[in-house]
Amino acid sequence: MSDQVRIVEVGPRDGLQNEKSILELRDKIALVNALSKTGLRDIETGSFVSPKWVPQMANSGEAFKGITKNPSVRYSALTPNLKGYELARDAGADEVAIFAAASEGFSQKNINCSISESIERFKGITEQAKRDQIPVRGYLSCIFACPYDGATPIEVVIDACEKLFEIGCYEVSLGDTTGVGTAYETKTLMQHLTPRFDTARLALHFHDTYGQALANVYAGLEAGVRNFDASVAGLGGCPYAKGASGNLATEDLVYLLDRSGLQHGVDLEALIDAGNEICTTLGRRNLSAVARARSSS
Amino acid sequence: MSDQVRIVEVGPRDGLQNEKSILELRDKIALVNALSKTGLRDIETGSFVSPKWVPQMANSGEAFKGITKNPSVRYSALTPNLKGYELARDAGADEVAIFAAASEGFSQKNINCSISESIERFKGITEQAKRDQIPVRGYLSCIFACPYDGATPIEVVIDACEKLFEIGCYEVSLGDTTGVGTAYETKTLMQHLTPRFDTARLALHFHDTYGQALANVYAGLEAGVRNFDASVAGLGGCPYAKGASGNLATEDLVYLLDRSGLQHGVDLEALIDAGNEICTTLGRRNLSAVARARSSS
Repeated sequence: MSDQVRIVEVGPRDGLQNEKSILELRDKIALVNALSKTGLRDIETGSFVSPKWVPQMANSGEAFKGITKNPSVRYSALTPNLKGYELARDAGADEVAIFAAASEGFSQKNINCSISESIERFKGITEQAKRDQIPVRGYLSCIFACPYDGATPIEVVIDACEKLFEIGCYEVSLGDTTGVGTAYETKTLMQHLTPRFDTARLALHFHDTYGQALANVYAGLEAGVRNFDASVAGLGGCPYAKGASGNLATEDLVYLLDRSGLQHGVDLEALIDAGNEICTTLGRRNLSAVARARSSS
Repeated sequence: MSDQVRIVEVGPRDGLQNEKSILELRDKIALVNALSKTGLRDIETGSFVSPKWVPQMANSGEAFKGITKNPSVRYSALTPNLKGYELARDAGADEVAIFAAASEGFSQKNINCSISESIERFKGITEQAKRDQIPVRGYLSCIFACPYDGATPIEVVIDACEKLFEIGCYEVSLGDTTGVGTAYETKTLMQHLTPRFDTARLALHFHDTYGQALANVYAGLEAGVRNFDASVAGLGGCPYAKGASGNLATEDLVYLLDRSGLQHGVDLEALIDAGNEICTTLGRRNLSAVARARSSS
């Protein structure tokens, strides 16, 4: 197994879109710029979904244009459709991400179609992105459970992964959207996925709602996964359990990797500074245990 | 490997002694009584160290006498010397615990003697306890690092474990006192310990200071460990990083076990209620992610 781990920083997008406060453009640009100096190589910077749905992301185009680009960083954007894709591309996104759910109930309630149809619809993006030589990442949510359907059968995850790869995603990020899964469930899921897919093309995306995120990461690492999403300062709440924790904090992931002989290239102290800064701006508690311990000792 | 996990609840002792507020006797009794109805079978109830050092534990004798004993529960006490042991025994403790550090620096600074000498001194307790048929548990702290000496060599942990078993401990609880260790370090440590000791006689005791506690537990479970210490609501801070999290929250551990097919006998909802109750009494935040998610959804 490789000792190189890739961290995809999702704070400025997945994190901020689940925060109560809407960040001003200059503060969002400052966050992305600060993150781009920490050694992170992948920063999800914005989303081109309708501002009616996600007002926190309305200024994504301006954010992309306002940041100081670090040529070593890949800045990505979430895109729901071809129009969003074109806006992202024209704003300068280096990569785009599309999203499906491993739950028919979630898919129906959120986008009013089946999982297959939802993935099929993204072909417009993947085909154009191929012409534009822009890599497309696939998010698959609800890998363990869905707020509507309950437990997710592993076959549904496998099937949706296959379809996302088929339409041209270079990687699938498997997300435990409600944060309910445990390390044993990650281990079991990976036992089914690693024989079927190239593990280097799988990523894991955990939420800390039930305090299980880092244990899930460790189970993923033990299964050979080397791509993980995380959010600086644990930005982002959980829409299904108000007041609960959201994304895994990048600092806590980096701390684990630092003491595990795994390479990732991120400077923990610079990351903690970036996290503390955005928490001050948002007037919120830093949800990274590492940041709290380091800042209080 | 067994699918039975034993949880040693340390909230009323290790937890409360690191809280700022000193709990009144009736509240401490209420906590232990509430915990004794959750299905927990081991509750560390108090400590017979000098009240000058640990004022939070000054009323341990009264607490032992005031609780409503559940015959299925083993109520234990921390005892620093033969006098403390006799007080614990006479107050009705079913089990006692002694403590050593896997660090010469910690041992010298805290009790002014070497690790070996500190364990040797506990012989007075283990010999008397044998006559009284009271089981003695050994705590070994600083298994990964010490605030004075830095990283702990594994040989020191092995040597101290051997000595604790030699003088008559039925089990050794290995504690990451400063919470700095990661799952990889737990895995490595257990690779050295499991060939040398009966794994059924080892317990793990993690602090969540750096957010690593549950990942460490999972690494321990994967190594075959089936005894874990935890503290309801994450009671207890970290004396080495003020404001940081303390003990692993029992609720988060139970949640992991519940979804892993491992048996433990604890009712999660009753445990969450007990944790919320003590947090209200102490006027503190509940540090169990599971308790927060369940109480806010």
